[in-house]
Amino acid sequence: MLTSTTLALMSVAVIGYHRRMVRWEPGASDRLRAAALELFAEQGVDATTVAAIADRAGVTERTFFRYFADKREVLFGDQQTFAALFLDPVAAAPADASPFEAVAAGVRAAGAWFPEERRAHSRLRGAVIGANPALTERELSKMAAVAEQLAGVLRERGTAEPAATLAGRAGIAVFSTAFAQWLADGETRGMDELVELGLRELRALA
Amino acid sequence: MLTSTTLALMSVAVIGYHRRMVRWEPGASDRLRAAALELFAEQGVDATTVAAIADRAGVTERTFFRYFADKREVLFGDQQTFAALFLDPVAAAPADASPFEAVAAGVRAAGAWFPEERRAHSRLRGAVIGANPALTERELSKMAAVAEQLAGVLRERGTAEPAATLAGRAGIAVFSTAFAQWLADGETRGMDELVELGLRELRALA
Repeated sequence: MLTSTTLALMSVAVIGYHRRMVRWEPGASDRLRAAALELFAEQGVDATTVAAIADRAGVTERTFFRYFADKREVLFGDQQTFAALFLDPVAAAPADASPFEAVAAGVRAAGAWFPEERRAHSRLRGAVIGANPALTERELSKMAAVAEQLAGVLRERGTAEPAATLAGRAGIAVFSTAFAQWLADGETRGMDELVELGLRELRALA
Repeated sequence: MLTSTTLALMSVAVIGYHRRMVRWEPGASDRLRAAALELFAEQGVDATTVAAIADRAGVTERTFFRYFADKREVLFGDQQTFAALFLDPVAAAPADASPFEAVAAGVRAAGAWFPEERRAHSRLRGAVIGANPALTERELSKMAAVAEQLAGVLRERGTAEPAATLAGRAGIAVFSTAFAQWLADGETRGMDELVELGLRELRALA
């Protein structure tokens, strides 16, 4: 006969086994991201612990720290992967493409990474980040780093300064403006359409 | 006859009197800024206390906190005053000026706030900020806030979105790029010349 104590111990053992399995499961980082976003939206970033995030994702804290340096980092994907969305098309642009055309190719490629099915998640993430000044600064800093990397790729292509830096920053301005529009309540246009609009508007401005 | 103890007590009294006077002296914030920058450059931001800054400036810690919220804030002027350099010329631009022309007027006015005699101080400040990721993020965040305010003034002038946001961000990109060039070792061109170069380059890019 199983007593309630025995059942509780079995349950702990099963959870323990499950967690050991999960530590090596490729889906862990996605589950951690989803769990963190839910908790941040429910109770705020400051009130959410790494332990609570790991618990909701069904993994250990140790697994958490295998993927992320701290709880805030869960909101940001791998920076190199994200930057590569912008940088690879710039490096691959035809040699006779202007700096602006090369950067536009990068911004379009990054925009394509945000199809309609990511909008709800991105809106929730944007709301969490917008409510927290430290996260807003981290987001700005990461986008500024991509702008600087864009300038670096343009310099390698032979673009002089300050044109390279200005083109990198202008490209990130187009992306970030389109992204903020895409997240706005009631906005139905796709990210690709908003990126094209931003590129046209920037040309028209200057 | 004055014993050394009496002399020491007098000295303390004189310093105390001096400090009470200084608390109300208009130059205190400038001296605090200079003292903080020296100490940050000598020993780093983390190792520098508010007490040490106040001591070198010859004021009390209480006086320090009358002017600044924390030691890092000493590196940043009053945000409203700084933003007004950009915003006032935009609000005052002729009604038929394009968004880019209006923003260019603001960027030129802000550039004029950095004449040659401020370059050495600005270089030291730039080195301190560049060596500290948290300060770099604060600087980025403050510039992003000015870009957003620029967009707000443009919207009041009738500029639609996303043109207003893009023009604000493009203007700050020109300013920040010119400012970084102005601070670079060996750069001798003035901030006004570098701002004009940036405005021209941005036009040529797009």
